[in-house]
Amino acid sequence: DLAQDFDVTLVDLRQANLEAAKDKFGLSTLKADLSNPATVKELIADQDLACGALASVLGFQTLRAVIEAGKPYCDISFMPEDALDLDALAKEHGVTAIVDMGVAPGMSNVLAGWGAQRLDSPDNIEIYVGGLPRARHWPFEYKAAFAPYDVIEEYTRPSRIVVNGELVIKEALSEPELLEFDGIGSLEAFNTDGLRSLVRTLSVPNMKEKTMRYPGHIALMAAFRETGLFSHEPVEVKGPTGSSTIRPIDLISTLMFPKWTYEEGEEDLTIMRVLVDGQKDGQPTRLQWDLVDSFDRASMCTSMSRTTALPCSTMARLVLDGTVTAHGIIAPELLGTMPGVPEALLARMEVLGIRYTERALPC
Amino acid sequence: DLAQDFDVTLVDLRQANLEAAKDKFGLSTLKADLSNPATVKELIADQDLACGALASVLGFQTLRAVIEAGKPYCDISFMPEDALDLDALAKEHGVTAIVDMGVAPGMSNVLAGWGAQRLDSPDNIEIYVGGLPRARHWPFEYKAAFAPYDVIEEYTRPSRIVVNGELVIKEALSEPELLEFDGIGSLEAFNTDGLRSLVRTLSVPNMKEKTMRYPGHIALMAAFRETGLFSHEPVEVKGPTGSSTIRPIDLISTLMFPKWTYEEGEEDLTIMRVLVDGQKDGQPTRLQWDLVDSFDRASMCTSMSRTTALPCSTMARLVLDGTVTAHGIIAPELLGTMPGVPEALLARMEVLGIRYTERALPC
Repeated sequence: DLAQDFDVTLVDLRQANLEAAKDKFGLSTLKADLSNPATVKELIADQDLACGALASVLGFQTLRAVIEAGKPYCDISFMPEDALDLDALAKEHGVTAIVDMGVAPGMSNVLAGWGAQRLDSPDNIEIYVGGLPRARHWPFEYKAAFAPYDVIEEYTRPSRIVVNGELVIKEALSEPELLEFDGIGSLEAFNTDGLRSLVRTLSVPNMKEKTMRYPGHIALMAAFRETGLFSHEPVEVKGPTGSSTIRPIDLISTLMFPKWTYEEGEEDLTIMRVLVDGQKDGQPTRLQWDLVDSFDRASMCTSMSRTTALPCSTMARLVLDGTVTAHGIIAPELLGTMPGVPEALLARMEVLGIRYTERALPC
Repeated sequence: DLAQDFDVTLVDLRQANLEAAKDKFGLSTLKADLSNPATVKELIADQDLACGALASVLGFQTLRAVIEAGKPYCDISFMPEDALDLDALAKEHGVTAIVDMGVAPGMSNVLAGWGAQRLDSPDNIEIYVGGLPRARHWPFEYKAAFAPYDVIEEYTRPSRIVVNGELVIKEALSEPELLEFDGIGSLEAFNTDGLRSLVRTLSVPNMKEKTMRYPGHIALMAAFRETGLFSHEPVEVKGPTGSSTIRPIDLISTLMFPKWTYEEGEEDLTIMRVLVDGQKDGQPTRLQWDLVDSFDRASMCTSMSRTTALPCSTMARLVLDGTVTAHGIIAPELLGTMPGVPEALLARMEVLGIRYTERALPC
C-alpha cells in the first residue's frame, strides 16, 4: 500500500522474505537485525516515518528506540508490556506513536472510541472478532492466521472484561454465544483477554471482547484443556521403552499445529462486529459495525494480512499528510475521537475493498 | 453366587484381593501363580468344575490346561486367540468348556443364537452394548469398567461386521446412530469389533455389534484420534529443555485414564439391546431383548461385574446339574440353541435381579 506512493524500505533478518517482498511489491529492502535498538535508530535516521510489525519480544524496545530517534511510528507489533507507559517519553520527544493499529486491536478500538464519542452516555461496548478458514475441515474447523501457540494462550489465559465499572476476570472459553453473519452463518463467540488499552482509556461501564470460531471448536478446545493437553506442567509418561517427562502443550502443539496451518492459497476470512450501546437524543441506541472480509484472489493476500496491515499503512498516510498531529502514545480508540480521522480511515478501507458496514439500531 | 451352594476356592496371586473376597463372600482362598499351566492342572485336580476370569495373556493357555485336566470349565477370560481351535481337544477329553460367557460376549451370543433358532429364516442380528457411569461428567461422560487401554483399542481397531453374507471391515467409531432406552434417554452406538465367534458359528447374512456411549463421546474420541492422540507411532517433541520422543497414546493414557476411573461406590449402568430379525409363520418379525441394569447398592457390586460374572456362574450351575452335557468348546450362541438352556439362564438372571425384557415386534 505505502510503496504505491512513497519510497519504502523493508527491513528484515531473513533474505528470502526480503526477496519475496521485493518481487511482489517493488520495495527497497535491507537485511538487518532489529533486535539491537541502536540499529533501529540508525536505520530510521533519514526516514520520515517508521511502521513496526515485529515479534512480541521486540515490540516495546523498538517503540522506545523509534521515540528516542524522534520519528513518527505506526505499529502493529504485539507486546506484553503496556505501550502507554512510554506516553510521557513520546510527548517529551514530540513524537506521534500509534500502537496496536491492526484489526483487533486496532480498528475495533477506533470504532469503540468513535461510537462512545457519538453517543451521549455510552454504557456498553462489545467487540467480536475471528480469523477463520473459509472451508471448514473436521475436527477443528479452524486454522491459525498467526502464531498457533498464541491461539492456545487465548484458550487458557483468564480474560479481563468490565462489568458495571469493575474489572472482572472470566475463564477463557467461557460464556459462549451464537452470532449470525450474512453469507457466513452462525459463529460462536467466547471470552478472550482482548480489551487491552480500552480498560485504561475508556470509562464505559461494560466492555468485553470475544473471539469467534465456527460452532463446536470451543467445546473441543475446552475438552482438550480439561483433559490437560494445554498444560505447561511436565508429566511423567510411561511407555514400552521406559519413562519420559514431557509438557503436554509441547505434544499437542506438535500434533495439532500442522493441521492448523493454511495451505498456500487457502482462503481465509476475517469477521468482526463492534457494538456500542448508549443514549442518543434521549433514545437507547446501538451503533454496530460489521466486517466480513475474504481472502483477496487478485493479490493472493490473506484477509488477515490485509485487514491487519492496511489500517496501519492508512494511519501512516494520515500522519504523513498532517491529519493526525497529536504527540504521545496514541491508542487507536483515541484516533476514533479525533475529528475526521475515523471517517478518513474507513473511507480508505472502503477504497481498499475492506468494508465496515455501519448501522444505528434502537436497543 | 456359587459360594452360596458350593464349596468354592478362589485362586489369585494378590493376597489383598483374596482377603477382600474371603471377607465379603465366605470363600476359601489360595494364593498361587496361574501363569504356569501345570499349577492350574494341579489345583483343579480335586475340583468338580473351574471358572476362569483371567488376564488375556493367560486365557488360552489356561483353557488348554483345564481341558487337558479333564474338568468342565466356564470362562469369561478375554483371549486374542480363537478358543474354537481347541474344540477337537476338548471333545477328545470329553470336556464341556463354555467360553466368552459374560454379558457381551456372552448373553448377547446366547440371545442371538436363541433368536436365530426361533425364527424361520433369520436375516439380521444387531447387538448394542455399553457400560456407562450413571452420572455424566463433562467432557467424557464415560468411565471404564474394564481396562481403559482396551477401550481405546475399540476406538481404533477396524470392526468386522457381516453384510449380505460377506465379512466387511468398517472403521472404528463409524456409523453412529441414536437409540432410546427407558429411564436412560438417548445413547449413541458405533461400530466395534465385537462379533467374535458369531462370524464363524452363525450363517445369518447380516450381523453387527455396536458399542453405546452417551451422545457426544464418540465425536470427542474421533477428534482425539484424528489429532493423533491415540497413535502408537513415536513422535519427536521439542520442549523448553530439549527434545524427547514419545508415543501419543502413552501421554493421553496418563492424562485421561484417571478421569475414566470409577470412584469407590460410584454407580454404573450396563445397557444392552439384541435384535434378531427374520420370518416367523410367514410374517417379518423382530425379536428384541433389552437390558438396563444398575449398580447394586445392596451388595455394593458394580453392574458390569454382576452382569458379566453371573451368566458365567449360572452356566457353571447348569453344567453341574446336568442341564448342559455337550462336549467341546461351547460358544454361548450354541447354548442359545439347546432346549431349555436359554430359558433357564434368563430365569436365573431374573432371580438375581438382572432382567432381560423380551419383545416380539412386527418389522
